[in-house]
Amino acid sequence: MRAPYDVAVIGNAIVDVLARVEDPLLAELGVEKGIMTLVDAERSEAIYRRLPPAVEVSGGSGANTAAGIASLGGKAGFIGKVKDDQLGAVFRHDLTALGVHFPTSAGVEAAPTARCMIMVTPDAQRTMQTYLGACIELTPDDVDEELIGGAEVTYLEGYLWDPPGAKQAFLKAAELAHQAGRKVALSLSDPFCVERHRDSFMTLIQGHVDLVFANEAELTALYRTDLDQALSAVRGHVELAAVTRGASGSVVATGERTVSVPAEPVERLVDTTGAGDLYAAGFLYAYTHGRDAATCARIGSICAAEIISHMGPRPETNLARLVESTLSAV
Amino acid sequence: MRAPYDVAVIGNAIVDVLARVEDPLLAELGVEKGIMTLVDAERSEAIYRRLPPAVEVSGGSGANTAAGIASLGGKAGFIGKVKDDQLGAVFRHDLTALGVHFPTSAGVEAAPTARCMIMVTPDAQRTMQTYLGACIELTPDDVDEELIGGAEVTYLEGYLWDPPGAKQAFLKAAELAHQAGRKVALSLSDPFCVERHRDSFMTLIQGHVDLVFANEAELTALYRTDLDQALSAVRGHVELAAVTRGASGSVVATGERTVSVPAEPVERLVDTTGAGDLYAAGFLYAYTHGRDAATCARIGSICAAEIISHMGPRPETNLARLVESTLSAV
Repeated sequence: MRAPYDVAVIGNAIVDVLARVEDPLLAELGVEKGIMTLVDAERSEAIYRRLPPAVEVSGGSGANTAAGIASLGGKAGFIGKVKDDQLGAVFRHDLTALGVHFPTSAGVEAAPTARCMIMVTPDAQRTMQTYLGACIELTPDDVDEELIGGAEVTYLEGYLWDPPGAKQAFLKAAELAHQAGRKVALSLSDPFCVERHRDSFMTLIQGHVDLVFANEAELTALYRTDLDQALSAVRGHVELAAVTRGASGSVVATGERTVSVPAEPVERLVDTTGAGDLYAAGFLYAYTHGRDAATCARIGSICAAEIISHMGPRPETNLARLVESTLSAV
Repeated sequence: MRAPYDVAVIGNAIVDVLARVEDPLLAELGVEKGIMTLVDAERSEAIYRRLPPAVEVSGGSGANTAAGIASLGGKAGFIGKVKDDQLGAVFRHDLTALGVHFPTSAGVEAAPTARCMIMVTPDAQRTMQTYLGACIELTPDDVDEELIGGAEVTYLEGYLWDPPGAKQAFLKAAELAHQAGRKVALSLSDPFCVERHRDSFMTLIQGHVDLVFANEAELTALYRTDLDQALSAVRGHVELAAVTRGASGSVVATGERTVSVPAEPVERLVDTTGAGDLYAAGFLYAYTHGRDAATCARIGSICAAEIISHMGPRPETNLARLVESTLSAV
């Protein structure tokens, strides 16, 4: 019998504040381009004051993946912590409006709902400053056993591998998933995130993870070597690793095989925010519907191509129809 | 000596919740297409639950005009009421980041910051459901005398001509402006808004207003006649009336003259939200810089064309550069 959920995601519940900026502002603010940096409430406010007018869109890496899976027609659940405030209501609305199951209760006394200021430069690169707010109050109690046990894959957002409560939540979820005979996936999220937590990431992967999602910089940071060597190494640790390479497409390593899939062409590259998240969405939707590795990667690429053609990390079109029409075109 | 401000705006301080919807949803919700309807908190929640994922963008008709004037390089001020909450902070940030002076203090005990759910149908029309929240707590005390006395034009957003405190604020502002030898402008905002307040709008216009901004439906609703007759009538009441006619451009009536200006061509019509607001921005910027009526209307049309070519009611490009390059193209 088919599991009630395709994918259960555990991730940060974040509303994005998206602004188009010119490169000199990044230098003035002293932020590193292309990278996610954690900031406290005060620094977040100080940066916000320097930003031009922005738009607010629900985000969060893992939540974007859950939204993508729902847009593909898949059944997704999400575990992550908002506060019971205006941005928390926005986050919950945008996720549940897609049909994503979101059982995590809002924090009442918690810090405000998290926000991530995303500065998009003219080259379509995104640079992120995240105030985690309520996210860090996620605990193992928030891990919904019915959701995790009932999902083909539990997908863990690597950004969350930091506060002790969330780490315990990851381990609890991985255990529950495996007890139910399900798979556990992990995204590496960010090269600096990998650097900071390299040893414990390695332990997590070797002990609890079946599927790894990463971009080239993240995987090579994890194994401190080049891509070929890193692919050989990760092959020994997990069942499958899907590695994105920007315009060069993606590589999937499984057992003894390596499959390379080109990137999907994009008419106009606008904003790369969410590219990896939506690749994972397409890949996991296909994976949980029994498709082979090459098809999983292809569908991931189609979803990533949609997201980078507009501002913001959530699909602006029905991905199920997009994938169907793209795959059926000769 | 030049006044310190070009335009002071009094309007509703609103964050827009923008969602793309199909026409049948409007029918299901029982809302009238193309119109702005006021809703209470409960009805607002009920509609929100039915909306697909949305984006949040600062809006408010008069505030969009103030933002447009700032983007044109003009000096604008804004008076309107938010609450001291997350959306209130978003609204304040987006306006002040453009350099708009915004002296109104946030309500602490007030209702939440206002939000307007804007449903954009595939024909690019917008249908709006507004929960006014903190807006209705605007009082004459919020009318900043230095701002009004120091602005060439005080622009009143017609939507606000409803709660008693705001009406008194309008009358106080008009009086202050005229005492300082300035002009007073009024936007008619919405045909239903005009119907509801027809008599008192007429009294306001005849007694206190120098410049009227309206679309064709609003002006003909005010005078209960056709456009030609309405233009004759309004000519006797105010110094200047600028009337937008969608794809047919706009008509400006001054004294004995009527000037018609075509609409600016648009490559792709995406969302008409803010078209009238940005027309008024372009017009008033030009007007306060001594341009003739035809040029004011032309610059208004250029700004309106920018806003309807993307989602949302705030400019996505620097309007000063856009206007300069458009006017200099042969």
